[in-house]
Amino acid sequence: MQSKTFHVAVVGATGAVGQQMLNMLEERDFPISKLSLLSSARSAGKKLTFKGEVVEVQEASPESFEGVDLALFSAGGSVSKQLAPEAVKRGAIVIDNTSAFRMDPEVPLVVPEVNEADLFEHNGIIANPNCSTIQMVAALEPLRKELGLNKVIVSTYQAVSGAGAVAINELRDQSQAMLNEEEYTPEVLPVKSDKKHYPIAFNALPQIDLFQDNGFTFEEMKMINETKKIMHLPELEVAATCVRLPIEIGHAESVYVELDTNGKSAQDIKDMLKNAPGIVLEDNPNEQVYPTPLSSAGKKEVFVGRIRKDLDKDNAFHMWVVSDNLLKGAAWNSVQIAERLIALNILK
Amino acid sequence: MQSKTFHVAVVGATGAVGQQMLNMLEERDFPISKLSLLSSARSAGKKLTFKGEVVEVQEASPESFEGVDLALFSAGGSVSKQLAPEAVKRGAIVIDNTSAFRMDPEVPLVVPEVNEADLFEHNGIIANPNCSTIQMVAALEPLRKELGLNKVIVSTYQAVSGAGAVAINELRDQSQAMLNEEEYTPEVLPVKSDKKHYPIAFNALPQIDLFQDNGFTFEEMKMINETKKIMHLPELEVAATCVRLPIEIGHAESVYVELDTNGKSAQDIKDMLKNAPGIVLEDNPNEQVYPTPLSSAGKKEVFVGRIRKDLDKDNAFHMWVVSDNLLKGAAWNSVQIAERLIALNILK
Repeated sequence: MQSKTFHVAVVGATGAVGQQMLNMLEERDFPISKLSLLSSARSAGKKLTFKGEVVEVQEASPESFEGVDLALFSAGGSVSKQLAPEAVKRGAIVIDNTSAFRMDPEVPLVVPEVNEADLFEHNGIIANPNCSTIQMVAALEPLRKELGLNKVIVSTYQAVSGAGAVAINELRDQSQAMLNEEEYTPEVLPVKSDKKHYPIAFNALPQIDLFQDNGFTFEEMKMINETKKIMHLPELEVAATCVRLPIEIGHAESVYVELDTNGKSAQDIKDMLKNAPGIVLEDNPNEQVYPTPLSSAGKKEVFVGRIRKDLDKDNAFHMWVVSDNLLKGAAWNSVQIAERLIALNILK
Repeated sequence: MQSKTFHVAVVGATGAVGQQMLNMLEERDFPISKLSLLSSARSAGKKLTFKGEVVEVQEASPESFEGVDLALFSAGGSVSKQLAPEAVKRGAIVIDNTSAFRMDPEVPLVVPEVNEADLFEHNGIIANPNCSTIQMVAALEPLRKELGLNKVIVSTYQAVSGAGAVAINELRDQSQAMLNEEEYTPEVLPVKSDKKHYPIAFNALPQIDLFQDNGFTFEEMKMINETKKIMHLPELEVAATCVRLPIEIGHAESVYVELDTNGKSAQDIKDMLKNAPGIVLEDNPNEQVYPTPLSSAGKKEVFVGRIRKDLDKDNAFHMWVVSDNLLKGAAWNSVQIAERLIALNILK
């Protein structure tokens, strides 16, 4: 069926998300005519394997995008701000995994299960939402569509891989040191670029990304603002508390939601989610069935469990939403957007 | 000032909480004339140290409570159900750390900072609330008193020590095995007596205690029901999602609260909590100051940070509440109740 192939560039190919982008492109047998792996000067020269062939990573420059049809960016916001427009100028469609363009009104912010039609409005750049936002809106969309949404309050349980490979190493080294009762000086978490660092091993850090003037962190504001944009619900009440935990892969979320509709049961909600695209219902308390970060790791779906009707409000429910933050939260959502661009004849 | 001394029994002395009860009695120089350490047959004969003296643990029986003035129970609900009435029959006041009597209308359920006056209503048994409830109501009480409470939604981040010393060992052994990429079969968490067990190391388990028919866990229902009882607010809307995490000591809670009062700022809330009994405010985003489980471990207070005004509702706030689950969550609250019983001339 698919015959056209594309010159694809991956920017940030050596990072935790970049690696998973290559895995996804390979697993999905994405129609690639040529693959350019790009990075900062620091990682240039490294060799990565794609479909059994060794590809050398090259330093990204404006000229790297000559002839590129599709560029997947995941090398930090400043790289995207500088180079994504250069790629677009040269005819590429950019799918950007950083926060650089997400709230730009000219840039669609897309989770295919939720707002695929927004892809038609692109002006060269399409933004991939924040990891913790993606899995939540994927789980909320079936409820919005059938019952309407008024209010969302989320508390997150986020894995360190969201802060990159250095954070995974810090968690491992620090866990080993603590088990050995040895000293360890934290240097990466909660936020590498921030002033202070705290131990993550056997701990919980209520800070992801930098604090904003309103007392919320940037991660929390991303969840709040991106959810409204993706769902086209500017009036939706959303609040978030984001917490980093000693987990390598898999974000979990405790989500409270108030619907527009009264009189629904937990079973009604389960039935809606069971048949929703990209969602796997894992919810059977009698058999202790519920999703966990470890059970979601390596999978592309969003897993939902612990669905309960609120004991006080007839229109309110609680649920537990888990997904692999590097896959649906980042690499898979980006590659999924790319697949949809082809299916919708936008990338051609 | 204090001259009277008491014969004190600790039931469950060899457990994680029991050990901390001994630490608290020693640290607070509790007025003890005689100390009886009691346990199941399995732990009888063990030797513990109290104030430099070795005390042998004896098997608990009804007769163990002859002459006892004060009995601190923390050996599981069935032991309390069987032996607490025997202790009362023999003239002791019982402070019970299990869930056996908490919702009994004849039994006061007490957090001294919140409802100390309820101690006067005791009929021999006083119940110590669930760990995750205690720290939350301690943080909510200053707001209830000044501004009134309408609604509470909490998501917890709970340490394994709440499931006993065996759970701490499981977390350590499993963490080491995972770091070594070795196999490990979980046998304790999430609930030792339940059918299935899941890995806790580098994971998050949305189950604490057994599931109830309404889809909530017993831990979640404890938080909901105990909060209403302790605060004397049967109409308060409370919802909880309780999650076990790879943390040894220190429960954290993401708490959303709707007040009876509009127009307050986050600073108003901080000012109220700063001067509240048993509360330590740790809240300065500019300096990355917020409490964490590791920073709370070994301390008796409840630590509150991340206080934010909700972005949508004028009467709503978010906060992050952390405390040592073995101390304020269990042993310290029990010993604190005992101290108040003396101060109020109830234990005499």
